[in-house]
Amino acid sequence: MAFERELCFCPRVFLRVQTKIEKMVDLTQIMDDEVFMAFASYATIILSKMMLMSATTAFYRMTRKVFANPEDCVTFGKGENAKKYLRTDDRVERVRRAHLNDLENIVPFLGIGLLYSLSGPDLSTAILHFRLFVGARIYHTISYLTPLPQPNRGLSFFIGYGVTLSMAYRLLKNKLYL
Amino acid sequence: MAFERELCFCPRVFLRVQTKIEKMVDLTQIMDDEVFMAFASYATIILSKMMLMSATTAFYRMTRKVFANPEDCVTFGKGENAKKYLRTDDRVERVRRAHLNDLENIVPFLGIGLLYSLSGPDLSTAILHFRLFVGARIYHTISYLTPLPQPNRGLSFFIGYGVTLSMAYRLLKNKLYL
Amino acid sequence: MAFERELCFCPRVFLRVQTKIEKMVDLTQIMDDEVFMAFASYATIILSKMMLMSATTAFYRMTRKVFANPEDCVTFGKGENAKKYLRTDDRVERVRRAHLNDLENIVPFLGIGLLYSLSGPDLSTAILHFRLFVGARIYHTISYLTPLPQPNRGLSFFIGYGVTLSMAYRLLKNKLYL
Repeated sequence: MAFERELCFCPRVFLRVQTKIEKMVDLTQIMDDEVFMAFASYATIILSKMMLMSATTAFYRMTRKVFANPEDCVTFGKGENAKKYLRTDDRVERVRRAHLNDLENIVPFLGIGLLYSLSGPDLSTAILHFRLFVGARIYHTISYLTPLPQPNRGLSFFIGYGVTLSMAYRLLKNKLYL
Repeated sequence: MAFERELCFCPRVFLRVQTKIEKMVDLTQIMDDEVFMAFASYATIILSKMMLMSATTAFYRMTRKVFANPEDCVTFGKGENAKKYLRTDDRVERVRRAHLNDLENIVPFLGIGLLYSLSGPDLSTAILHFRLFVGARIYHTISYLTPLPQPNRGLSFFIGYGVTLSMAYRLLKNKLYL
Repeated sequence: MAFERELCFCPRVFLRVQTKIEKMVDLTQIMDDEVFMAFASYATIILSKMMLMSATTAFYRMTRKVFANPEDCVTFGKGENAKKYLRTDDRVERVRRAHLNDLENIVPFLGIGLLYSLSGPDLSTAILHFRLFVGARIYHTISYLTPLPQPNRGLSFFIGYGVTLSMAYRLLKNKLYL
């Protein structure tokens, strides 16, 4: 191209053009990395699933009239004696436990998974990790909320747990810097 | 400049200098990206706000003498019968619920927001998302701790929730890679 | 080298080779940054420590036969009257409080620490922050689970808290963009 031909004769201009191109390209590049894109997709999916737990809790609280705050009873638990809705319920507590368990497991996955994705792992190995984790956590939620008999929930928990530890191990093995 | 003039005559040196400059510049570049800088600022603000909840819990525990651990009663609840301070309190439980709700909502915002920021969104759209989320979460805390009558807290919760889902949708629409 | 000599005579080819090298090198570069690598290492360590809390809870639940779900009692609490294992226990609740406290403090560290690492801090200052935080959180867990008398736990909590706030302050001072 004519553009490139001009550069041939003046590296000084080339330096400037090059610098400008780099700045614009920079952040798009990180998303051009396949491992990182895969991580972004799976992380977004599992976080969206976790957010569903908030909606499920809200749904059960509304339909079963089980509230944790007096001001919620007044507004949503209409009736002469609203205070009686300030109670706990097995169904609601079960969703809350599942939600907290999600939080306890998805936070390490996010942190370790992000750093692992940036440490240049093999694409197929990385995707295997992400898929196993997301699958295990979705199955964990299903077996917690149904509820399925043990060891359904226990096994899905330990698969997710093992995947995260495997990523942590690979990360520290390659990139430990203390 | 004399420096650049020299480069003109020896691209081989240029190659080395260029590589060195790049390495040093690299991480600063990510912070030169306006969307990313905006995300960093809003994320830091909302995380600092969340940390305030820990301090608030500690404050109420100390002033109201309400502890969860026997060893805290002994040290902070001086008196002949310290064990009686091992109890729960409405005020403290309210702060703890607000804190847990923060955690449940800010973790998805951090994860999805970070990936969304790197996916090259429009600056003004991105900032609108961040501002709405941070504003909604601050209002959520105010309406939880005051407490304001519903649906103040409910609405602020759903605004934050919707903002995060909107970012997740935009991210998956552009960059899905499974 | 012969390779470089050729480039000297044809900057146009140089431009293409350079661009290709950059794309491949890009994500490795972020891990070449010493501050980022240090952050990755310490974050992975503290997240792995947090994951140990899940295993500790599971261990105590199994050995002490204390379960939160009826389906766990049936499978793990064999015997004629399994429902009696659906109970709470001081030891288990203590681990769960330590775990939740970890979550509340490690999430801000991850978010703020990641952004702080990318904001180009001084290497030795950054490492001092990371080490203090990780040390304080490990000591927090030890003093929570032993339990050590206060103010062991309180002090280690506030050291971790202060470190995170210090990073937040440095980040916002340099890079505020609202």
